[in-house]
Amino acid sequence: MEDRFLEYIPMLNGLPQEHIKKLASSAIYKSYKAGELIAVPGEKIRAFLIIAWGRVKLFSASADGHEQTIYIFGPGEPFCMTAIEDSSFPANAQALEDTRIVMLPSDVMESIARTEPALMFNMMSVLIRRLKESMFIIEMLSMKEVPQRLASWLLHSAAVQLSGKTIHLGMSHRELSKLLGTTPETVSRVFRRFQDENILEIKGRTIGLLNRKKLEDIATDAD
Amino acid sequence: MEDRFLEYIPMLNGLPQEHIKKLASSAIYKSYKAGELIAVPGEKIRAFLIIAWGRVKLFSASADGHEQTIYIFGPGEPFCMTAIEDSSFPANAQALEDTRIVMLPSDVMESIARTEPALMFNMMSVLIRRLKESMFIIEMLSMKEVPQRLASWLLHSAAVQLSGKTIHLGMSHRELSKLLGTTPETVSRVFRRFQDENILEIKGRTIGLLNRKKLEDIATDAD
Repeated sequence: MEDRFLEYIPMLNGLPQEHIKKLASSAIYKSYKAGELIAVPGEKIRAFLIIAWGRVKLFSASADGHEQTIYIFGPGEPFCMTAIEDSSFPANAQALEDTRIVMLPSDVMESIARTEPALMFNMMSVLIRRLKESMFIIEMLSMKEVPQRLASWLLHSAAVQLSGKTIHLGMSHRELSKLLGTTPETVSRVFRRFQDENILEIKGRTIGLLNRKKLEDIATDAD
Repeated sequence: MEDRFLEYIPMLNGLPQEHIKKLASSAIYKSYKAGELIAVPGEKIRAFLIIAWGRVKLFSASADGHEQTIYIFGPGEPFCMTAIEDSSFPANAQALEDTRIVMLPSDVMESIARTEPALMFNMMSVLIRRLKESMFIIEMLSMKEVPQRLASWLLHSAAVQLSGKTIHLGMSHRELSKLLGTTPETVSRVFRRFQDENILEIKGRTIGLLNRKKLEDIATDAD
Protein backbone atom coordinates (compact mmCIF):
# COMPACT_ATOMS: atom_id res chain seq x y z
CA MET A 1 0.00 0.00 0.00
CA GLU A 2 2.54 2.55 1.16
CA ASP A 3 4.81 1.80 -1.79
CA ARG A 4 2.37 3.48 -4.19
CA PHE A 5 2.82 6.65 -2.12
CA LEU A 6 6.14 7.49 -3.79
CA GLU A 7 4.44 7.81 -7.19
CA TYR A 8 2.66 10.94 -5.97
CA ILE A 9 5.66 12.81 -4.57
CA PRO A 10 6.37 15.93 -6.67
CA MET A 11 10.14 15.59 -6.05
CA LEU A 12 10.09 12.17 -7.76
CA ASN A 13 8.07 13.42 -10.70
CA GLY A 14 9.23 12.21 -14.11
CA LEU A 15 11.22 9.29 -12.72
CA PRO A 16 10.89 6.00 -14.63
CA GLN A 17 8.91 3.28 -12.84
CA GLU A 18 12.03 1.14 -12.28
CA HIS A 19 13.60 3.88 -10.15
CA ILE A 20 10.43 4.44 -8.15
CA LYS A 21 10.41 0.69 -7.43
CA LYS A 22 14.07 0.77 -6.41
CA LEU A 23 13.34 3.64 -4.02
CA ALA A 24 10.22 1.96 -2.69
CA SER A 25 12.15 -1.20 -1.85
CA SER A 26 14.80 0.75 0.08
CA ALA A 27 12.39 3.20 1.75
CA ILE A 28 11.97 3.09 5.51
CA TYR A 29 8.71 4.31 7.08
CA LYS A 30 8.73 5.71 10.58
CA SER A 31 6.02 7.21 12.79
CA TYR A 32 6.39 10.07 15.24
CA LYS A 33 4.01 11.26 17.96
CA ALA A 34 2.97 14.91 18.08
CA GLY A 35 5.78 16.88 19.71
CA GLU A 36 8.44 14.24 19.09
CA LEU A 37 11.82 15.40 17.72
CA ILE A 38 12.75 13.89 14.35
CA ALA A 39 16.20 15.46 13.99
CA VAL A 40 18.45 17.84 15.91
CA PRO A 41 21.19 20.25 14.73
CA GLY A 42 24.46 18.56 13.80
CA GLU A 43 22.87 15.14 13.32
CA LYS A 44 24.10 13.22 10.27
CA ILE A 45 21.10 11.84 8.45
CA ARG A 46 21.93 9.82 5.37
CA ALA A 47 18.40 9.92 3.98
CA PHE A 48 15.95 12.29 2.35
CA LEU A 49 12.86 12.58 4.51
CA ILE A 50 9.40 12.98 3.01
CA ILE A 51 6.20 13.47 4.98
CA ALA A 52 3.64 10.75 4.23
CA TRP A 53 1.07 12.32 6.55
CA GLY A 54 1.13 14.82 9.39
CA ARG A 55 3.11 18.02 9.73
CA VAL A 56 6.70 18.83 10.63
CA LYS A 57 8.17 22.02 11.99
CA LEU A 58 11.75 23.08 11.31
CA PHE A 59 13.06 25.46 13.95
CA SER A 60 16.18 26.87 15.53
CA ALA A 61 16.46 27.00 19.30
CA SER A 62 18.80 29.06 21.42
CA ALA A 63 20.09 27.79 24.76
CA ASP A 64 17.68 30.05 26.68
CA GLY A 65 14.77 28.16 25.12
CA HIS A 66 13.80 30.77 22.54
CA GLU A 67 12.46 29.09 19.39
CA GLN A 68 12.31 30.49 15.88
CA THR A 69 10.20 28.56 13.39
CA ILE A 70 11.77 28.42 9.92
CA TYR A 71 9.31 26.26 7.95
CA ILE A 72 6.27 24.11 8.48
CA PHE A 73 6.06 21.15 6.07
CA GLY A 74 2.99 19.13 5.10
CA PRO A 75 2.24 15.83 3.32
CA GLY A 76 4.37 15.11 0.23
CA GLU A 77 6.99 17.67 1.16
CA PRO A 78 10.64 16.64 1.41
CA PHE A 79 13.06 17.89 4.00
CA CYS A 80 16.60 17.10 5.09
CA MET A 81 17.85 18.07 1.63
CA THR A 82 21.33 18.42 3.15
CA ALA A 83 21.53 14.59 2.97
CA ILE A 84 22.87 14.89 -0.58
CA GLU A 85 26.05 16.38 0.84
CA ASP A 86 26.69 14.05 3.75
CA SER A 87 26.52 17.21 5.81
CA SER A 88 24.90 17.68 9.17
CA PHE A 89 21.30 18.70 9.76
CA PRO A 90 21.13 22.47 10.29
CA ALA A 91 18.08 22.80 12.59
CA ASN A 92 15.54 20.96 14.73
CA ALA A 93 12.74 19.00 13.08
CA GLN A 94 9.72 18.20 15.22
CA ALA A 95 6.41 16.47 14.51
CA LEU A 96 3.65 19.07 15.02
CA GLU A 97 1.02 16.33 15.05
CA ASP A 98 1.17 12.54 14.71
CA THR A 99 3.31 12.15 11.61
CA ARG A 100 4.57 9.41 9.33
CA ILE A 101 7.86 9.90 7.51
CA VAL A 102 9.39 8.07 4.55
CA MET A 103 13.17 7.91 4.62
CA LEU A 104 14.84 7.49 1.22
CA PRO A 105 18.49 6.48 1.68
CA SER A 106 20.73 9.14 0.15
CA ASP A 107 23.06 6.63 -1.55
CA VAL A 108 20.11 5.24 -3.52
CA MET A 109 18.88 8.78 -4.31
CA GLU A 110 22.38 9.77 -5.40
CA SER A 111 22.89 6.81 -7.70
CA ILE A 112 19.55 7.53 -9.40
CA ALA A 113 20.30 11.26 -9.59
CA ARG A 114 23.55 10.54 -11.44
CA THR A 115 21.67 9.00 -14.35
CA GLU A 116 18.40 10.93 -14.14
CA PRO A 117 18.73 14.70 -14.61
CA ALA A 118 14.98 14.98 -13.91
CA LEU A 119 15.54 14.02 -10.27
CA MET A 120 18.42 16.49 -9.99
CA PHE A 121 16.32 19.30 -11.41
CA ASN A 122 13.46 18.43 -9.04
CA MET A 123 15.79 18.46 -6.05
CA MET A 124 17.30 21.73 -7.15
CA SER A 125 13.86 23.17 -7.55
CA VAL A 126 13.01 22.21 -3.94
CA LEU A 127 16.26 23.80 -2.72
CA ILE A 128 15.55 27.03 -4.63
CA ARG A 129 12.02 27.20 -3.17
CA ARG A 130 13.43 26.74 0.35
CA LEU A 131 16.07 29.38 -0.28
CA LYS A 132 13.48 31.90 -1.46
CA GLU A 133 11.30 31.08 1.54
CA SER A 134 14.31 31.67 3.82
CA MET A 135 14.94 35.02 2.19
CA PHE A 136 11.34 35.99 2.83
CA ILE A 137 11.68 35.03 6.51
CA ILE A 138 14.91 37.04 6.81
CA GLU A 139 13.17 40.04 5.26
CA MET A 140 10.21 39.62 7.60
CA LEU A 141 12.34 39.23 10.74
CA SER A 142 14.23 42.39 9.82
CA MET A 143 10.95 44.32 10.14
CA LYS A 144 10.59 45.98 13.50
CA GLU A 145 6.80 45.90 14.03
CA VAL A 146 4.52 42.86 14.31
CA PRO A 147 1.66 44.37 12.19
CA GLN A 148 4.21 44.83 9.41
CA ARG A 149 5.45 41.25 9.79
CA LEU A 150 1.93 39.81 9.84
CA ALA A 151 0.86 41.85 6.80
CA SER A 152 3.94 40.68 4.86
CA TRP A 153 3.33 37.10 5.88
CA LEU A 154 -0.34 37.24 4.77
CA LEU A 155 0.60 38.67 1.37
CA HIS A 156 3.41 36.14 1.00
CA SER A 157 1.07 33.26 1.90
CA ALA A 158 -1.52 34.47 -0.61
CA ALA A 159 1.20 34.46 -3.29
CA VAL A 160 2.51 31.01 -2.31
CA GLN A 161 -1.02 29.54 -2.06
CA LEU A 162 -1.74 31.12 -5.48
CA SER A 163 -4.92 32.58 -4.04
CA GLY A 164 -5.56 36.24 -4.54
CA LYS A 165 -8.11 36.84 -1.81
CA THR A 166 -8.36 33.93 0.60
CA ILE A 167 -5.67 32.15 2.48
CA HIS A 168 -5.74 29.11 4.67
CA LEU A 169 -3.98 29.55 8.01
CA GLY A 170 -2.36 26.15 8.35
CA MET A 171 -1.42 26.64 11.99
CA SER A 172 -2.51 27.99 15.38
CA HIS A 173 -1.80 31.56 16.51
CA ARG A 174 0.75 29.99 18.82
CA GLU A 175 2.65 28.42 15.91
CA LEU A 176 2.30 31.56 13.80
CA SER A 177 3.77 33.65 16.61
CA LYS A 178 6.90 31.47 16.58
CA LEU A 179 7.24 32.09 12.86
CA LEU A 180 6.74 35.86 13.22
CA GLY A 181 9.13 36.06 16.18
CA THR A 182 6.53 37.34 18.67
CA THR A 183 3.95 36.13 21.22
CA PRO A 184 0.56 34.45 20.56
CA GLU A 185 -1.17 37.37 22.40
CA THR A 186 0.39 39.91 20.03
CA VAL A 187 -0.63 37.87 16.98
CA SER A 188 -4.24 37.67 18.23
CA ARG A 189 -4.26 41.40 19.02
CA VAL A 190 -3.02 42.35 15.53
CA PHE A 191 -5.53 39.97 13.91
CA ARG A 192 -8.32 41.71 15.89
CA ARG A 193 -7.05 45.12 14.79
CA PHE A 194 -6.97 44.01 11.13
CA GLN A 195 -10.54 42.73 11.50
CA ASP A 196 -11.75 45.92 13.17
CA GLU A 197 -10.24 47.95 10.35
CA ASN A 198 -11.96 45.73 7.74
CA ILE A 199 -8.64 44.61 6.34
CA LEU A 200 -9.32 40.93 7.05
CA GLU A 201 -12.33 38.69 7.43
CA ILE A 202 -11.55 35.67 9.59
CA LYS A 203 -13.68 32.51 9.66
CA GLY A 204 -11.93 29.80 11.63
CA ARG A 205 -8.64 29.24 9.84
CA THR A 206 -9.80 30.84 6.58
CA ILE A 207 -8.69 34.41 6.15
CA GLY A 208 -10.21 36.69 3.55
CA LEU A 209 -8.08 39.62 2.40
CA LEU A 210 -10.70 42.43 2.21
CA ASN A 211 -8.29 45.30 1.71
CA ARG A 212 -5.15 44.20 -0.05
CA LYS A 213 -3.94 47.75 -0.70
CA LYS A 214 -4.04 48.55 3.03
CA LEU A 215 -2.19 45.33 3.82
CA GLU A 216 0.52 46.28 1.33
CA ASP A 217 0.78 49.73 2.92
CA ILE A 218 1.25 48.19 6.35
CA ALA A 219 3.77 45.65 5.03
CA THR A 220 5.83 48.43 3.46
CA ASP A 221 5.43 50.62 6.52
CA ALA A 222 3.75 53.33 4.46
CA ASP A 223 0.89 53.17 6.97
CA MET B 1 42.92 36.09 -20.55
CA GLU B 2 39.54 36.14 -18.85
CA ASP B 3 38.56 32.82 -20.42
CA ARG B 4 41.04 30.97 -18.20
CA PHE B 5 39.16 32.39 -15.20
CA LEU B 6 36.38 29.78 -15.48
CA GLU B 7 38.86 26.96 -14.85
CA TYR B 8 39.29 28.18 -11.28
CA ILE B 9 35.63 28.46 -10.33
CA PRO B 10 34.77 25.84 -7.66
CA MET B 11 31.23 25.45 -9.06
CA LEU B 12 32.68 24.31 -12.40
CA ASN B 13 35.09 21.87 -10.76
CA GLY B 14 35.36 18.47 -12.44
CA LEU B 15 33.90 19.65 -15.74
CA PRO B 16 35.67 18.37 -18.89
CA GLN B 17 37.67 20.97 -20.79
CA GLU B 18 35.21 20.98 -23.73
CA HIS B 19 32.40 22.20 -21.47
CA ILE B 20 34.58 24.89 -19.89
CA LYS B 21 35.38 26.09 -23.43
CA LYS B 22 31.70 26.08 -24.37
CA LEU B 23 30.88 28.15 -21.29
CA ALA B 24 33.80 30.50 -21.90
CA SER B 25 32.63 31.20 -25.43
CA SER B 26 29.10 32.07 -24.26
CA ALA B 27 30.16 33.99 -21.12
CA ILE B 28 29.47 37.70 -20.92
CA TYR B 29 31.66 39.90 -18.71
CA LYS B 30 30.23 43.04 -17.22
CA SER B 31 31.65 45.68 -14.86
CA TYR B 32 29.82 47.53 -12.10
CA LYS B 33 30.87 50.59 -10.14
CA ALA B 34 30.80 50.50 -6.32
CA GLY B 35 27.21 51.04 -5.21
CA GLU B 36 25.65 50.08 -8.54
CA LEU B 37 22.66 47.71 -8.50
CA ILE B 38 23.20 44.45 -10.39
CA ALA B 39 19.73 42.97 -9.92
CA VAL B 40 16.45 43.86 -8.21
CA PRO B 41 13.63 41.68 -6.78
CA GLY B 42 11.38 40.16 -9.43
CA GLU B 43 13.90 40.57 -12.23
CA LYS B 44 14.21 37.59 -14.58
CA ILE B 45 17.87 36.86 -15.11
CA ARG B 46 18.57 33.97 -17.43
CA ALA B 47 22.18 33.59 -16.37
CA PHE B 48 24.28 32.36 -13.47
CA LEU B 49 26.41 35.21 -12.19
CA ILE B 50 29.91 34.65 -10.85
CA ILE B 51 32.12 37.33 -9.33
CA ALA B 52 35.43 37.67 -11.21
CA TRP B 53 36.67 40.35 -8.83
CA GLY B 54 35.08 42.73 -6.33
CA ARG B 55 32.31 42.08 -3.84
CA VAL B 56 28.53 41.85 -4.09
CA LYS B 57 25.94 42.33 -1.39
CA LEU B 58 22.58 40.57 -1.48
CA PHE B 59 19.95 42.40 0.56
CA SER B 60 16.25 42.88 1.05
CA ALA B 61 14.85 46.39 1.28
CA SER B 62 11.51 47.52 2.65
CA ALA B 63 9.71 50.56 1.24
CA ASP B 64 10.75 52.71 4.21
CA GLY B 65 14.40 52.27 3.20
CA HIS B 66 15.33 49.70 5.84
CA GLU B 67 17.92 47.27 4.46
CA GLN B 68 18.71 43.78 5.68
CA THR B 69 21.90 42.22 4.31
CA ILE B 70 21.53 38.52 3.54
CA TYR B 71 24.94 37.59 2.11
CA ILE B 72 28.16 39.21 0.97
CA PHE B 73 29.86 37.37 -1.92
CA GLY B 74 33.51 37.55 -2.99
CA PRO B 75 35.60 36.49 -6.02
CA GLY B 76 34.77 33.08 -7.50
CA GLU B 77 31.41 32.90 -5.76
CA PRO B 78 28.26 32.29 -7.82
CA PHE B 79 24.93 33.94 -7.19
CA CYS B 80 21.57 34.14 -8.93
CA MET B 81 21.19 30.36 -8.56
CA THR B 82 17.46 30.85 -9.19
CA ALA B 83 18.37 31.13 -12.91
CA ILE B 84 18.11 27.35 -13.20
CA GLU B 85 14.36 27.66 -12.66
CA ASP B 86 13.56 30.58 -14.90
CA SER B 87 12.25 32.16 -11.76
CA SER B 88 12.60 35.74 -10.64
CA PHE B 89 15.45 37.12 -8.57
CA PRO B 90 14.43 37.15 -4.88
CA ALA B 91 16.44 40.12 -3.54
CA ASN B 92 18.64 43.09 -4.44
CA ALA B 93 22.22 42.54 -5.57
CA GLN B 94 24.57 45.51 -5.33
CA ALA B 95 28.29 45.96 -6.04
CA LEU B 96 29.97 46.81 -2.73
CA GLU B 97 33.10 47.93 -4.56
CA ASP B 98 34.09 48.08 -8.24
CA THR B 99 33.15 44.61 -9.40
CA ARG B 100 33.42 42.46 -12.49
CA ILE B 101 30.81 39.79 -13.10
CA VAL B 102 30.79 36.78 -15.46
CA MET B 103 27.34 35.85 -16.72
CA LEU B 104 26.93 32.23 -17.79
CA PRO B 105 23.70 31.83 -19.81
CA SER B 106 21.39 29.41 -18.02
CA ASP B 107 20.44 27.50 -21.19
CA VAL B 108 24.11 26.59 -21.75
CA MET B 109 24.51 25.70 -18.05
CA GLU B 110 21.36 23.58 -18.18
CA SER B 111 22.36 21.65 -21.29
CA ILE B 112 25.74 20.84 -19.71
CA ALA B 113 24.11 19.94 -16.38
CA ARG B 114 21.87 17.39 -18.13
CA THR B 115 24.87 15.34 -19.19
CA GLU B 116 27.29 16.15 -16.37
CA PRO B 117 26.11 15.11 -12.90
CA ALA B 118 29.28 16.74 -11.49
CA LEU B 119 27.95 20.19 -12.38
CA MET B 120 24.56 19.35 -10.84
CA PHE B 121 26.15 18.18 -7.62
CA ASN B 122 28.31 21.31 -7.49
CA MET B 123 25.26 23.54 -7.99
CA MET B 124 23.33 21.65 -5.37
CA SER B 125 26.23 21.99 -3.00
CA VAL B 126 26.18 25.80 -3.49
CA LEU B 127 22.42 25.86 -2.86
CA ILE B 128 22.77 23.81 0.33
CA ARG B 129 25.53 26.12 1.59
CA ARG B 130 23.32 29.16 0.93
CA LEU B 131 20.38 27.50 2.64
CA LYS B 132 22.43 26.72 5.75
CA GLU B 133 23.76 30.28 5.76
CA SER B 134 20.15 31.56 5.57
CA MET B 135 19.16 29.38 8.49
CA PHE B 136 22.02 30.82 10.51
CA ILE B 137 20.87 34.37 9.70
CA ILE B 138 17.28 33.52 10.67
CA GLU B 139 18.54 32.09 13.97
CA MET B 140 20.66 35.19 14.56
CA LEU B 141 17.88 37.66 13.73
CA SER B 142 15.58 35.84 16.13
CA MET B 143 17.98 36.78 18.97
CA LYS B 144 16.86 39.85 20.83
CA GLU B 145 20.20 41.39 21.89
CA VAL B 146 23.01 42.69 19.69
CA PRO B 147 25.87 41.24 21.85
CA GLN B 148 24.22 37.83 21.41
CA ARG B 149 23.94 38.34 17.63
CA LEU B 150 27.54 39.52 17.29
CA ALA B 151 28.88 36.66 19.41
CA SER B 152 26.94 34.13 17.28
CA TRP B 153 28.15 35.75 14.09
CA LEU B 154 31.81 35.66 15.23
CA LEU B 155 31.58 31.97 16.18
CA HIS B 156 29.79 31.20 12.91
CA SER B 157 32.45 33.08 10.89
CA ALA B 158 35.24 31.23 12.69
CA ALA B 159 33.56 27.94 11.75
CA VAL B 160 32.98 28.99 8.12
CA GLN B 161 36.54 30.37 7.76
CA LEU B 162 37.81 27.10 9.32
CA SER B 163 39.92 29.14 11.70
CA GLY B 164 39.72 28.34 15.35
CA LYS B 165 41.03 31.55 16.84
CA THR B 166 41.31 34.31 14.25
CA ILE B 167 38.75 35.63 11.86
CA HIS B 168 38.98 38.14 9.09
CA LEU B 169 36.26 40.77 9.17
CA GLY B 170 35.58 41.13 5.45
CA MET B 171 33.49 44.28 5.83
CA SER B 172 33.13 47.63 7.61
CA HIS B 173 31.19 48.03 10.88
CA ARG B 174 28.58 49.76 8.75
CA GLU B 175 28.12 46.67 6.53
CA LEU B 176 28.23 44.34 9.52
CA SER B 177 25.49 46.33 11.24
CA LYS B 178 23.21 45.75 8.22
CA LEU B 179 23.84 42.02 8.52
CA LEU B 180 23.19 42.00 12.28
CA GLY B 181 20.08 44.15 11.93
CA THR B 182 21.35 47.06 14.05
CA THR B 183 23.29 50.35 13.79
CA PRO B 184 27.05 50.86 13.14
CA GLU B 185 27.29 52.67 16.51
CA THR B 186 25.90 49.68 18.38
CA VAL B 187 28.28 47.29 16.57
CA SER B 188 31.27 49.49 17.50
CA ARG B 189 30.07 49.76 21.10
CA VAL B 190 29.70 45.97 21.48
CA PHE B 191 33.11 45.40 19.86
CA ARG B 192 34.62 47.82 22.43
CA ARG B 193 32.89 45.98 25.27
CA PHE B 194 34.20 42.61 24.00
CA GLN B 195 37.71 44.11 23.83
CA ASP B 196 37.47 45.61 27.32
CA GLU B 197 36.38 42.23 28.68
CA ASN B 198 39.33 40.51 26.92
CA ILE B 199 37.00 38.42 24.82
CA LEU B 200 38.40 39.77 21.53
CA GLU B 201 41.65 41.25 20.32
CA ILE B 202 41.09 43.51 17.31
CA LYS B 203 43.88 44.60 14.92
CA GLY B 204 42.41 46.37 11.92
CA ARG B 205 40.08 43.82 10.34
CA THR B 206 41.70 40.83 12.03
CA ILE B 207 39.84 39.63 15.10
CA GLY B 208 41.40 37.25 17.59
CA LEU B 209 39.00 35.18 19.68
CA LEU B 210 40.70 35.33 23.12
CA ASN B 211 37.87 33.83 25.12
CA ARG B 212 35.80 31.44 23.06
CA LYS B 213 33.97 30.04 26.06
CA LYS B 214 32.72 33.51 27.06
CA LEU B 215 31.64 34.18 23.46
CA GLU B 216 29.65 30.93 23.46
CA ASP B 217 28.02 31.92 26.77
CA ILE B 218 26.97 35.28 25.31
CA ALA B 219 25.73 33.66 22.09
CA THR B 220 23.57 31.24 24.06
CA ASP B 221 22.44 33.97 26.43
CA ALA B 222 23.90 32.09 29.40
CA ASP B 223 25.79 35.30 30.23
